Amino acid sequence: MIKTRLTEMFGVQHPIVMGGMTGVGYPDLVAAVANAGALGFLTAHMFDSAEALAEAIGRVRDQTDKPFGVNMTILPSINPIPYDEYRRAICETGVKIVETAGRSPEPHLPDFKAAGVKVIHKCTSVRHAVTAERLGVDVISIDGFECAGHPGEDDVTIMVLLPATVDAVKIPVIASGGMADGRSLIAALSLGADGVNMGTRFLATQEAAIHENVKRQIVENSERDTVLINRTLRNTSRVARNAISEQVADIQRDATKTFDDVKELVAGARGRANVLQGGDIDGGIWTVGQSQGLIHDIPTCKELVANIAAQAESVMSDRLAKIFTLA
Amino acid sequence: MIKTRLTEMFGVQHPIVMGGMTGVGYPDLVAAVANAGALGFLTAHMFDSAEALAEAIGRVRDQTDKPFGVNMTILPSINPIPYDEYRRAICETGVKIVETAGRSPEPHLPDFKAAGVKVIHKCTSVRHAVTAERLGVDVISIDGFECAGHPGEDDVTIMVLLPATVDAVKIPVIASGGMADGRSLIAALSLGADGVNMGTRFLATQEAAIHENVKRQIVENSERDTVLINRTLRNTSRVARNAISEQVADIQRDATKTFDDVKELVAGARGRANVLQGGDIDGGIWTVGQSQGLIHDIPTCKELVANIAAQAESVMSDRLAKIFTLA
Repeated sequence: MIKTRLTEMFGVQHPIVMGGMTGVGYPDLVAAVANAGALGFLTAHMFDSAEALAEAIGRVRDQTDKPFGVNMTILPSINPIPYDEYRRAICETGVKIVETAGRSPEPHLPDFKAAGVKVIHKCTSVRHAVTAERLGVDVISIDGFECAGHPGEDDVTIMVLLPATVDAVKIPVIASGGMADGRSLIAALSLGADGVNMGTRFLATQEAAIHENVKRQIVENSERDTVLINRTLRNTSRVARNAISEQVADIQRDATKTFDDVKELVAGARGRANVLQGGDIDGGIWTVGQSQGLIHDIPTCKELVANIAAQAESVMSDRLAKIFTLA
Repeated sequence: MIKTRLTEMFGVQHPIVMGGMTGVGYPDLVAAVANAGALGFLTAHMFDSAEALAEAIGRVRDQTDKPFGVNMTILPSINPIPYDEYRRAICETGVKIVETAGRSPEPHLPDFKAAGVKVIHKCTSVRHAVTAERLGVDVISIDGFECAGHPGEDDVTIMVLLPATVDAVKIPVIASGGMADGRSLIAALSLGADGVNMGTRFLATQEAAIHENVKRQIVENSERDTVLINRTLRNTSRVARNAISEQVADIQRDATKTFDDVKELVAGARGRANVLQGGDIDGGIWTVGQSQGLIHDIPTCKELVANIAAQAESVMSDRLAKIFTLA
């Protein structure tokens, strides 16, 4: 049993978080994560309206009475995303935990505070973590260079970024990026984290509503099988290595090319659906982290969380306790 | 007290290594590291001849009777480097620990084995670690993306690369890259390492024979103040951010430019001496890792190693032991 400020603040059994994931954070998976004793997040922008989000929240509640949260990733978008409506749905349905990412959560904080909602803000640098703490968020989730999706533009790895963040803020910090098992969990706790965020790891679970081909590809891939795209746009994404992502990265390395030259290739939702739902691994761009090199199975969420907790105990009692003689 | 396969194999007090560093790995520093209870390495190619190396080995021995080693970084060079003579000097002077890096250590292994010299091979990928183990090296030192100098071309961070390597080989593994303090040490041990390598951290010590300006700059720099150069040559180096390294990186991002366009700027030894010995921080390209973001002081080696050991104990007894209740 691990007791940290995170398990205390949110009333979860394990300091393990499954943050928001586009195309993945659906009610069944979030409920399975909650029932496993970890903290899962519904991904708000996957739902068209506040009503659809409220309905999804209801579907989680049908399956669990454990805590869970909603992710609001605040990004510029061609089709306006109804963030204010999402916020109202979260507050009105009584969800008490929100994960924000992307732009500043500031406009949403007064309403969340008033409704007793705790806010975890995801960021990729110490300076943004310090700003978020000053604005009043409750927890920082800090994303290292190795993470899936958006690592920012600083390329600082979690081994350095995590303790640097812990030194700079007083609120609890969640380690995100490269987290895969009980070893990562103890490493993160040693570096000062109060918990870990795992994204890629939860993709390869029975309950993730994605195609089996994707799960098998994660198991098959090594830590080398990711590619960074959109660096030249200062909107870097770490995605799975495949024919399309290699091609995009190649084109983007050529300074004479512009975004228009890759627009068709990176065509967001459609390409992602080809992969995640269609199982066409090379049919679009999809997101994974380097942690896939440590993922070798496709367990249920319950098995996964139990395995992580058991391995963490073993690292403590069979490994650290034995190599260590306290003075 | 931490007892690992590394402390046992080499008879050192702490599982802390200061690997070879060009322009830094001189006898006084190596002796200071040895006397602090850690394992330091003389950097062979800084000495013109086998005789000069043997003389340097003697100067370490004048100052300590503790174990130390010699680094042989095997790189292609315009001026041939006398590796065979170095190897003979190492064997004849009775040094028992060698760190190899760069090309395969294979040609040197029979002589080292015959002389009872243990070989630590430094590499940057799981596949190279597996090969090195098969060739017969005794220990792997695995370098993550965050390391100073040459991280390889895979960009896999130590949080993932370390446990992936530990899973792939049976011999002890040293974690290199991002290691700065007692927290990093416990994190690395949790991930399966038998020790840690610290380079940048030992630069900022009293005994490092480099200009005070460099040490102060390391303390001042954040984890963001490094730059990758020579990526386009597939010989990536992580170096300190300054006017020259920024300029080199900018030119190298332009696919129409060649190495000739940066040759003057990267002019190796001369530029490095401007900085390391001359103290002109912007006068050349010099090497540091992201761990500089966690370095805030310039202690003696003895103080540094004692601080790391004390912090590691505190992570175990004050932090992990308290958040953990074994089932």
